[in-house]
Amino acid sequence: MRMYTATVTVRLKSGVLDPEAETTRRALERLGFEVEALRSADRFEVDIEADSAEKAATRADEMAERLLANPTIHDYEVTVEQHTVPSGSQQ
Amino acid sequence: MRMYTATVTVRLKSGVLDPEAETTRRALERLGFEVEALRSADRFEVDIEADSAEKAATRADEMAERLLANPTIHDYEVTVEQHTVPSGSQQ
Repeated sequence: MRMYTATVTVRLKSGVLDPEAETTRRALERLGFEVEALRSADRFEVDIEADSAEKAATRADEMAERLLANPTIHDYEVTVEQHTVPSGSQQ
Repeated sequence: MRMYTATVTVRLKSGVLDPEAETTRRALERLGFEVEALRSADRFEVDIEADSAEKAATRADEMAERLLANPTIHDYEVTVEQHTVPSGSQQ
């Protein structure tokens, strides 16, 4: 078993209103920034023990399906990399 | 002027309590997932017109300093890539 970090990025499907992003964009413009567009997303970094990166990705995918994303309004993407364990820690 | 997409990822500094992440971790465990650790972050994708990727990154950095992140509790990172303009749009 190795430790992997799965990164799940959850964003609103295009066409779904994003009032938080719109508020942020307006606030930036009030500060004098020129912004063409702004999208916000949630990012979850999940440390998972698994036999392989593929299994870690499958697990993270299930987490996204069941809890982290709402399939009606969200798209999500999963990336996995091996977790760098600090030296001295157990594998 | 070209269009760039700057991605600003804002996360809590290590040591700062993250009750949202802790709640999400517990909910995943209630669903039967084994999670070693979970961190949450906010991700902003900002479309900016600029002369170069470096200038777009500098601009996004200022946005993070002034609005998107709170330097007391947050770290942030900025990455920039050239925006792919749909064909037929003006440059």
